[in-house]
Amino acid sequence: MTIDLNCDMGESFGAWPLGNDAALMQYITSANIACGFHAGDPLIMRKTVQLALKYHVAIGAHPGFPDLQGFGRREIKMSPEEVFTMTLYQIGALQAIVRAEGGALHHVKPHGALYNMAAQDRKLADAIARATRQAGADLVLYGLSGSVLIEAAKAIGLRTANEVFADRSYQDDGSLTPRNRPDALIEDTVAAVEQAMGMVRKQSVVSTGGKLVSLVAETICLHGDGAHAVEFAAAIHAALKGEAIQLKAP
Amino acid sequence: MTIDLNCDMGESFGAWPLGNDAALMQYITSANIACGFHAGDPLIMRKTVQLALKYHVAIGAHPGFPDLQGFGRREIKMSPEEVFTMTLYQIGALQAIVRAEGGALHHVKPHGALYNMAAQDRKLADAIARATRQAGADLVLYGLSGSVLIEAAKAIGLRTANEVFADRSYQDDGSLTPRNRPDALIEDTVAAVEQAMGMVRKQSVVSTGGKLVSLVAETICLHGDGAHAVEFAAAIHAALKGEAIQLKAP
Amino acid sequence: MTIDLNCDMGESFGAWPLGNDAALMQYITSANIACGFHAGDPLIMRKTVQLALKYHVAIGAHPGFPDLQGFGRREIKMSPEEVFTMTLYQIGALQAIVRAEGGALHHVKPHGALYNMAAQDRKLADAIARATRQAGADLVLYGLSGSVLIEAAKAIGLRTANEVFADRSYQDDGSLTPRNRPDALIEDTVAAVEQAMGMVRKQSVVSTGGKLVSLVAETICLHGDGAHAVEFAAAIHAALKGEAIQLKAP
Amino acid sequence: MTIDLNCDMGESFGAWPLGNDAALMQYITSANIACGFHAGDPLIMRKTVQLALKYHVAIGAHPGFPDLQGFGRREIKMSPEEVFTMTLYQIGALQAIVRAEGGALHHVKPHGALYNMAAQDRKLADAIARATRQAGADLVLYGLSGSVLIEAAKAIGLRTANEVFADRSYQDDGSLTPRNRPDALIEDTVAAVEQAMGMVRKQSVVSTGGKLVSLVAETICLHGDGAHAVEFAAAIHAALKGEAIQLKAP
Repeated sequence: MTIDLNCDMGESFGAWPLGNDAALMQYITSANIACGFHAGDPLIMRKTVQLALKYHVAIGAHPGFPDLQGFGRREIKMSPEEVFTMTLYQIGALQAIVRAEGGALHHVKPHGALYNMAAQDRKLADAIARATRQAGADLVLYGLSGSVLIEAAKAIGLRTANEVFADRSYQDDGSLTPRNRPDALIEDTVAAVEQAMGMVRKQSVVSTGGKLVSLVAETICLHGDGAHAVEFAAAIHAALKGEAIQLKAP
Repeated sequence: MTIDLNCDMGESFGAWPLGNDAALMQYITSANIACGFHAGDPLIMRKTVQLALKYHVAIGAHPGFPDLQGFGRREIKMSPEEVFTMTLYQIGALQAIVRAEGGALHHVKPHGALYNMAAQDRKLADAIARATRQAGADLVLYGLSGSVLIEAAKAIGLRTANEVFADRSYQDDGSLTPRNRPDALIEDTVAAVEQAMGMVRKQSVVSTGGKLVSLVAETICLHGDGAHAVEFAAAIHAALKGEAIQLKAP
Repeated sequence: MTIDLNCDMGESFGAWPLGNDAALMQYITSANIACGFHAGDPLIMRKTVQLALKYHVAIGAHPGFPDLQGFGRREIKMSPEEVFTMTLYQIGALQAIVRAEGGALHHVKPHGALYNMAAQDRKLADAIARATRQAGADLVLYGLSGSVLIEAAKAIGLRTANEVFADRSYQDDGSLTPRNRPDALIEDTVAAVEQAMGMVRKQSVVSTGGKLVSLVAETICLHGDGAHAVEFAAAIHAALKGEAIQLKAP
Repeated sequence: MTIDLNCDMGESFGAWPLGNDAALMQYITSANIACGFHAGDPLIMRKTVQLALKYHVAIGAHPGFPDLQGFGRREIKMSPEEVFTMTLYQIGALQAIVRAEGGALHHVKPHGALYNMAAQDRKLADAIARATRQAGADLVLYGLSGSVLIEAAKAIGLRTANEVFADRSYQDDGSLTPRNRPDALIEDTVAAVEQAMGMVRKQSVVSTGGKLVSLVAETICLHGDGAHAVEFAAAIHAALKGEAIQLKAP
């Protein structure tokens, strides 16, 4: 059994630090690095790439909407062509920095509102999948497990990684409980580890309504900010290792 | 005898058109495409790349300061490391778009204030040269003829193109007459063509003080905006062809 | 009979000119000046204010989404509080410039996607109305005739101006024909003038479906860009004057 | 005896928190609030204004260069007219927010590189002073004690506040020791308090070279970030109170 642990990284900007990249890098197998549109800047991208290479963590581009103030979390109505070109632009920018450091880009995972919209809107999903393939036919596209983005990627022959969440609850239909609901987040580390382990071993999760929902768990998303991010990452990492599940980027 | 005609291209932004790229492309052999920091956006970058490929024009990255309002013409005091990473970022972004269109990036030419600062400040010049080499060891770095940027590029083994200007006057020390001087610009097409021909054939120019100044003329910069840009480009192009000088990107 | 002719102005940005403000100012009675978020910058705002004062044209703030690349035409999902504060910010910025030139701000008209969203979404409309009132209880809020924005403004005691369009066709329900439909724009000047005259005199318009739709015509929007903007403005201006209709800002 | 304690505030941006405004506000008498160009955004500006009003702290605008990534600390070569309009723009934006909350703007203090450049460049100083007066003839302009900015403000009849630093060392000529020198910062709280007390009582400071340098101490700048910001503010506040020196905005 194999699973990938991914985390959004390089989300500082200029003078503003965010997240605890240095402490988290040891627990993960792939890092999604912000590309300057919703977070990150060239200097931070480079430092984060260097950190990932040091820890032998697979490097992914984490393109988002051009919205620093909104951290890429506000939906922006863009045409598929705009999404295609801005995704390609961001991947290319990171790719050059990764190559300059002697590494190779491994995957792409859209950020925030772009991730959520691409999970449901096939045209946006197609645009992101095409941009990814154009940037590298061997790149892996990470998307919400079972989402339209995964379909779009498969349709053009890209490798994919179905993403699941250890610290988010699921609804009966398999979608994530929206963040504005009180039971959206799993804040207890033990419960989150248990959900993670279950998803990896049984490829399913128990929904908030008590239903067993099947999903494909190829990569687990850890969050890089929040008070308990490091503790939480360490616990998941230890639990998986303890069950002899191999931690490995797809 | 061979010379390159280059022009800054893709300097529109969003809803704001600038320049006459479509009309000029037929007269030039290399295009410097803005990368989104001082002008250009992903959509415009892609359209400009497509246009250059259609006309078999060599494609270069035209990185600039992150200053849309100032069009990259205002000096910003950045550290060499900031210049290195932002240059690499911009080159990479364009590179991905060029590759997606089936082309290959050919050269890099810094824009505006960055170009002028890198002509004199060796640390900035080194930063730009290193970023260029990291993005591709075969890329050609364009810089002001005889400038520190050319030296920095040669010092790390990059190919270079010494740039001269047909429509700018030169001072006795070989530098361009600053734009705020009344005699900075050569507005008469005949005079500009004459200066261009002289620079190509004699590798020298007569300064505003009447001195014969030697220079290395490997690429001539045509300006993309201004009322007479197209007429001017056509005239230089015709004059060079008429003298059997080969027009070719370095 | 009285009508206002308004036009979006100051939509250049940095080195990129847009529109023909100098030629149009003589034909209008109120100018909506971009505030730097979707177009305009401090220098351009000031020049446009000076031009409006010279022509005794009423000055309005034209706040938009923070989206230069998209020219404020892309919907961004913002909370009402975000819309409230960013609208207040933009009005305040222009207000200071207007006062410094010896004028006084007269009105507020949201731009692009913000205008359209506020025509239908009461929470956004409330946010814009509140921001306007906070910036000045005597400011007039311009909104689509009969829209939710007009209602929101009235509800808090603001003066309003119902806006109609001479060069846009209307649907049976009184809404504007969406721009992606072939019959959205009225490109013929004679037809546009006729529609304008009809709207002013009869407070109604004939829809694309042939229905007589009532509306409130207090201000007519002229477009500042496009090939025929000046000709069109001159024609409407002349036709209204010819019928002894008083041109006057509300 | 009277002194003002000022602190830069509202320097968070979007999702990125910075500083400890809530804890510091109780110790200061005037707050310089970032206006969205180098830090701050409309939401943060509003929250910071509300906080300042709650603690009866005088509110100032803290305009900076349009450079989020560089936090306004990188010099940008702008014309005096650009500086004038962008300063006026920023002051106006904050002013509208302050008024909406029922307060009144009290002062202006330029930020970072703009502050340093305006301390020495009379044209930039004039531009900032004029923008301040245009925004309100009763506004107080804060500038480095004895600097060109103070002169420029006085020359047009503005009230001024000479600013001194408790945690920065001074050179023999009265200028601040540049930050890249090892002895630039006074990190020991006792030493900083002592320097502050001396500056207030004797209107002088002992330079790094051991010279007694006279200065005018009307406002002391406390820094809002850094590990010891709160402790440091509390200590200065307590020491001044203990000596019966009145803490009061100018």
